[in-house]
Amino acid sequence: MEKFVYSFNEGSKDMRNLLGGKGANLAEMTKIGLPVPFGFTITTEACKDYLEKGGELSESIIEEISEHLKDLEQVMGKTFGDIENPLLVSVRSGAPVSMPGMMDTILNLGLNDASVKGLAEKTGNDRFAYDSYRRFIQMFGDVVMEIPKAKFDAIFDGRKKEVGAEYDVDLKTEDLKVIIEGYKKLVKEELGREFPQDPKEQLLEAIRAVFRSWNNDRAILYRKLNNISSSLGTAVNVQSMVFGNTGDNSGTGVAFTRNPANGENKIFGEFLVNAQGEDVVAGIRTPQPIAEMEQTFPEVYKKFEDVAHILEERYKDMQDMEFTVEDGKLYMLQTRNGKRTAAAAVKIAVDMVEEGRIDKDTAIMRIEPDQINQLLHPTFDQAELNAATPVAKGLPASPGAACGEIVFSADEAAEAYANGHKVILVREETSPEDLAGMVAAEGILTARGGMTSHAAVVARGMGKCCVAGCSAINVHEDEHYMEVGGKKYVAGDLISINGSDGNVYAQAIKTVAPELSGDFGTIMKWADEIRDLDVRTNADNPRDAKQALEFGAQGIGLCRTEHMFFEDERIPKIRRMILADNEEERREALAGLLPYQQGDFEDLYRVMEGKPVTIRLLDPPLHEFLPKTEADIKELSDQFGIPEKKIRDKMVELHEFNPMLGHRGCRLAITYPEIAEMQTEAIINAALVVTKETGVKIKPEIMVPLVGNVTELRDVKKTIDETAEKCFEKAGMRLDYMVGTMIEIPRAALTADEIAEEAEFFSFGTNDLTQMGFGFSRDDTGNIIKEYVDKGILEADPFQQLDQRGIGKLVRMAVEDGKKTRPNIKLGVCGEHGGDPKTIDFCHRIGLNYVSCSPFRVPIARLAAAQATIRNK
Amino acid sequence: MEKFVYSFNEGSKDMRNLLGGKGANLAEMTKIGLPVPFGFTITTEACKDYLEKGGELSESIIEEISEHLKDLEQVMGKTFGDIENPLLVSVRSGAPVSMPGMMDTILNLGLNDASVKGLAEKTGNDRFAYDSYRRFIQMFGDVVMEIPKAKFDAIFDGRKKEVGAEYDVDLKTEDLKVIIEGYKKLVKEELGREFPQDPKEQLLEAIRAVFRSWNNDRAILYRKLNNISSSLGTAVNVQSMVFGNTGDNSGTGVAFTRNPANGENKIFGEFLVNAQGEDVVAGIRTPQPIAEMEQTFPEVYKKFEDVAHILEERYKDMQDMEFTVEDGKLYMLQTRNGKRTAAAAVKIAVDMVEEGRIDKDTAIMRIEPDQINQLLHPTFDQAELNAATPVAKGLPASPGAACGEIVFSADEAAEAYANGHKVILVREETSPEDLAGMVAAEGILTARGGMTSHAAVVARGMGKCCVAGCSAINVHEDEHYMEVGGKKYVAGDLISINGSDGNVYAQAIKTVAPELSGDFGTIMKWADEIRDLDVRTNADNPRDAKQALEFGAQGIGLCRTEHMFFEDERIPKIRRMILADNEEERREALAGLLPYQQGDFEDLYRVMEGKPVTIRLLDPPLHEFLPKTEADIKELSDQFGIPEKKIRDKMVELHEFNPMLGHRGCRLAITYPEIAEMQTEAIINAALVVTKETGVKIKPEIMVPLVGNVTELRDVKKTIDETAEKCFEKAGMRLDYMVGTMIEIPRAALTADEIAEEAEFFSFGTNDLTQMGFGFSRDDTGNIIKEYVDKGILEADPFQQLDQRGIGKLVRMAVEDGKKTRPNIKLGVCGEHGGDPKTIDFCHRIGLNYVSCSPFRVPIARLAAAQATIRNK
Repeated sequence: MEKFVYSFNEGSKDMRNLLGGKGANLAEMTKIGLPVPFGFTITTEACKDYLEKGGELSESIIEEISEHLKDLEQVMGKTFGDIENPLLVSVRSGAPVSMPGMMDTILNLGLNDASVKGLAEKTGNDRFAYDSYRRFIQMFGDVVMEIPKAKFDAIFDGRKKEVGAEYDVDLKTEDLKVIIEGYKKLVKEELGREFPQDPKEQLLEAIRAVFRSWNNDRAILYRKLNNISSSLGTAVNVQSMVFGNTGDNSGTGVAFTRNPANGENKIFGEFLVNAQGEDVVAGIRTPQPIAEMEQTFPEVYKKFEDVAHILEERYKDMQDMEFTVEDGKLYMLQTRNGKRTAAAAVKIAVDMVEEGRIDKDTAIMRIEPDQINQLLHPTFDQAELNAATPVAKGLPASPGAACGEIVFSADEAAEAYANGHKVILVREETSPEDLAGMVAAEGILTARGGMTSHAAVVARGMGKCCVAGCSAINVHEDEHYMEVGGKKYVAGDLISINGSDGNVYAQAIKTVAPELSGDFGTIMKWADEIRDLDVRTNADNPRDAKQALEFGAQGIGLCRTEHMFFEDERIPKIRRMILADNEEERREALAGLLPYQQGDFEDLYRVMEGKPVTIRLLDPPLHEFLPKTEADIKELSDQFGIPEKKIRDKMVELHEFNPMLGHRGCRLAITYPEIAEMQTEAIINAALVVTKETGVKIKPEIMVPLVGNVTELRDVKKTIDETAEKCFEKAGMRLDYMVGTMIEIPRAALTADEIAEEAEFFSFGTNDLTQMGFGFSRDDTGNIIKEYVDKGILEADPFQQLDQRGIGKLVRMAVEDGKKTRPNIKLGVCGEHGGDPKTIDFCHRIGLNYVSCSPFRVPIARLAAAQATIRNK
Repeated sequence: MEKFVYSFNEGSKDMRNLLGGKGANLAEMTKIGLPVPFGFTITTEACKDYLEKGGELSESIIEEISEHLKDLEQVMGKTFGDIENPLLVSVRSGAPVSMPGMMDTILNLGLNDASVKGLAEKTGNDRFAYDSYRRFIQMFGDVVMEIPKAKFDAIFDGRKKEVGAEYDVDLKTEDLKVIIEGYKKLVKEELGREFPQDPKEQLLEAIRAVFRSWNNDRAILYRKLNNISSSLGTAVNVQSMVFGNTGDNSGTGVAFTRNPANGENKIFGEFLVNAQGEDVVAGIRTPQPIAEMEQTFPEVYKKFEDVAHILEERYKDMQDMEFTVEDGKLYMLQTRNGKRTAAAAVKIAVDMVEEGRIDKDTAIMRIEPDQINQLLHPTFDQAELNAATPVAKGLPASPGAACGEIVFSADEAAEAYANGHKVILVREETSPEDLAGMVAAEGILTARGGMTSHAAVVARGMGKCCVAGCSAINVHEDEHYMEVGGKKYVAGDLISINGSDGNVYAQAIKTVAPELSGDFGTIMKWADEIRDLDVRTNADNPRDAKQALEFGAQGIGLCRTEHMFFEDERIPKIRRMILADNEEERREALAGLLPYQQGDFEDLYRVMEGKPVTIRLLDPPLHEFLPKTEADIKELSDQFGIPEKKIRDKMVELHEFNPMLGHRGCRLAITYPEIAEMQTEAIINAALVVTKETGVKIKPEIMVPLVGNVTELRDVKKTIDETAEKCFEKAGMRLDYMVGTMIEIPRAALTADEIAEEAEFFSFGTNDLTQMGFGFSRDDTGNIIKEYVDKGILEADPFQQLDQRGIGKLVRMAVEDGKKTRPNIKLGVCGEHGGDPKTIDFCHRIGLNYVSCSPFRVPIARLAAAQATIRNK
């Protein structure tokens, strides 16, 4: 017959799936002889059985529970419901994976009208005993019997009012007894039966409630969002109670085997004398640092230290433990792997390898890639931060902390920067024309726009702190002030913003620079040894490229040439090009842009020192470059002597209803080959110049965007090849280059076999592929996606984490079909997804060569790539 | 050894691939003993050999040609280059499929300085002989020797000027001789060699030129656009010349075995006495109807009649023949299946079945589906049309002819219609608010917008004549006039427009109604017996539904509910709904819309009498319903007492950068379930009402648009099911209904297996699937697609003809995956593609159940579906 209940001495930590995490750890501690209050675990199989039977606990399971209960009474020398020495137990859920949302803990089960007296006797504390009973009925009534909590509160608050008690603690034992009667009456009214006085009945009802809670709405949603199988089920732990509040020789505490904040190898935690766990949480009394326990409970502390070391050695990881001291005796209530900061995670992982406890693979797997983002950016000085209060909160759009004077325009930012001021650029939203201002600023704050708004994307690209969509601030850019909470702030006022949590402070807060060497460097080195995927960066300028190299980037996966056109001197030239009446005029304007563009590429090649550089030809629709304001139109008109009407007519002519799906990408290169010619000339000439200059061979990778049909790529490639040939002839020197394409239109992925006939590499533009594949405009659907994620319609924002099921299927098909045509085709991913760990795992599995991400995601990607290799070994 | 040259008596019509179409038909006529001037064909295999050898005619082929030439001289009793009785030949290309773009015809080859005298002698016409020689050198120099035609023209025109000749015919024989000398000198200068005097050399050069022309740019493009394999190659026909201009006992003509205009079973054609084919084409003399030949050449006519009957019997199809009479003897020069009008095609097909010549399958395959569009719409009276001249030409956006008074607004149109006037609605472009005006008008003329603009799509849906994008007209809607070619036209002026060719006439032209019974009805009946695919229609109102039923529709595949909201009484109510501050206000506004919507569905069900009706829930983004003009905003503000500012704020709030990829489709139903509830209530209640009323069971098919993830459909389906249940309870009666989805987002196609868990049917929204799959916004990319098609980057406009390679792959995947989950899932296609014959063939092949198209495409779809069945048997 199947066994559904295990005593703590029958299991081990490897039985997590059967006993749940908590139960397995209690069994492990029992097994290795640590002092654990005895108890038993009802298995996840019992849960499944219960659910399969439509919510019924089978007779055989009840039978097994009864037997284990008898054993427990025997071991503890106490009896359930006894008036003198009652056995009290805690009932706790414990699934194989940590899972909030389910019923958590019921303490002091076994109390009833008789045994409450035994508890009073034992603790010598009437008030405590009756308060425990009061709490037990309330908790049991709420979570097990599902009587609205408000009804209990009404009775409780009613009594408080009656006796004029301000705080709960002002209630006397007598009051608690009155409340208990009220609670019991309530239960009778609601359920038509008495509050169960039989402890065994209490226990069975509590167990059923835990099993039931496996399928409550919150638990289902949590499982869905975290991809946890609903077939796992939960276990239930029944453990005899011990009391830390029996006097000054008792106490309770929580502790970590190492410091979870900085990783220091020293026990860290808190302890409270003569108290129960609840008291620590309630915060009425201040616990003492665990180190002080050494003085107050030297023997117990010694014992605890031993236990801690045993556990860490056993689990090979930093442990988070709960314990109680009852009358000078130590009891372990729980142990589990402890949560830690990024800094601690890195230090602990490296230390443990050096201590010989774990190998490098394990160390790598111990660190949450997204977490190390914390280590790459400035942070606020903790003391100053503690003293500050935020005035508003926006979206944590780009991590890091920044402090500076408010400026409301890009020009002001640049000017202030030039004068040595540190500034925060505050805008309604940013546009490409704000680029120079964003470069000059310490951080960016916008009132509108989501996590993928221009400000957010560009700031992340720069690794610059950004708080976006902070709707609590009203920005009056033209009048040079902003309003927050009824207060007005003008240019020059100091503010601080935290891009890691979205907080905005109307005051200066000191920032602290990140530390990239030491343990962090060690972990990164190990990751590089392990990973298969290369990590490149998206960079449009030498500054970003340099930053990415410092972070370990192995090349540039995406250089967006259009960003180079927005700078002050250049934008009029590109506007002139757009306003040209014919090819000749267009060529003339383009000739003016060529030296700038070529210079940009030269600088980039010099920084990259021969590492691969993928340059994308002009992508956005031309109307993005046209003036936006009346003043700009006038200026442009004056500069080139073009009538304003003509400029306005062009704006109307180029207007698009859905620019995302309009005249952009390679469509521009096909309509105006002269643009692609100029860009190719710049790319090739720059490579020739730098190759001559440095002797390092440059092999540019020219990327044609928005290809949907191989014929498009064939057309543009012809333009590129012919132009390159002319450059070689002129220079009297040749070099190798590659021509490839973005796979960002669904049709490109669907016809990748054809496209690979022309393309030497594919770079998956998963942003646009997601936009078109999902039919979601990033500019418009932020709210819809948020609503979808909240409602569980989407598991995650598909612009943050690649949708492997749908969009990923396109990518996988394209990889397979592309390789069929060209087995050695180079495959990468660029765009926001390139820095997402789950996406990186996917990229590894489908056999890409590299991912490319913004500079500040490079270390994260290196780590995630190593984890992908380990995970899929 | 392989045989590369076939005498005409060595082949037959079944050797088309080897001898080309022309050669095979000449051989066939020779074989059955018809009088064909003797000759031979150099095969397509010779062409391939020539191309494989890099453009060289192999010795063995030259040898074979020489032998056949000798045979020819013997048969004809003439010698190549003879001064008294020279053998002259024509050289014609002839590929297996008709293919423009290649070198066509060289006549009178064999002429040289000596034989020209023989020709003069034989024809008794010096001038003709030298003019022929002159033309021969020019044609040969141009197409064979590739000397620019302009250089020949310069010599010719120079002589004309010298002698003061106004027309070519004013040139004397002497002048022609001078010109011939000039031509020969030109050849020498250009090529450094004499014009070849050796007829055999002339012949070989001409043959090489034909082979070469197989790979000229125009031919390559044509093959690409028409999916013709480039490996076919072309044949060359060498045929002895006969002369129709040797006197009054000679002549030349072209004729059809039946009337190609109306199909009448009577020989139809033209004949010209004492003339060569060229004279007929030149149009200097007017040919006589072939019937008159019966008088002038009774014996020859009798003979020709026999030949015509023999050929038709042989080919089982109406023949298009060329012939020459030389000195009273009939020679057949060519026969091929003749082109015909739709009316003729239908009559000939039906007649031939009745005559027992062909079976029904063959008859069905003989009719070009797109062509029968001509038969469904009014046309202009031919006589009046001949007398009229268009003043402008736009895009033929929706076929048919219409005549009426100009109106410039929807209101005027409705008013004039109410007063019994026939009107043409002239607009810059139309918007959904013009709907009532479009219904009232005979036809629609717009200055802007392409083949898929609002006007075009809606007009096609209504089967109403529409000329769109007529940029030659300047519409001043507010001032109530338009300008065309400098002339002003005001409201009330009569115009006529032809939606079949885009012509606009500034005058009244009588129209003639279409005829749908008779032979047309017979063909349609046969098609219905054969086809597997059902044909449904896209209809939003009873009028369209009725029209479609008359055309044989078997149900409604797409009813767009939003079109119902644009009517005058309703649009304010939907605006009120959009402007609601909360769900309660929204529900109140929706309650006001319910009776209208329910009434619409009732009317539709009544017309459809139990045939399936697929109703799509609200699809467009809400901002489409908001007012566009200041006056509208004011009116709305006054009507509901809502501040104008609030309306403007809402317009800003709802603005989207890419509405195509924004808050629309099922996303609306998820954000505002109350909209889906109201629509479901209307759909179900209407079905209950009409089922009760008529006793015919209605089974509505409710279609959820824009699903990209099964979770979306699950959410909306829950709303639908719950609402339907309430309706059933209230009515005390149940009925069956289906819930399905549009597959129009690429991700939906990619996850069709999941979506089929919830969807009882898929309707492929190939318009949006193409927009997102290709990344082409229909509203923006008309010009790009045109450019792409012109450049051969796209084979066809993917919005006209489904892109089977890319988008079709998505559809095919979705069909396969959908069936895996739900084997009996109902599958259809709606949208413009549903009426395209090539797409219909595709739909048949992948196993869809139905196609749905606009009412006026229904007969075309029925025919195309039958052809698909036959073609894929």
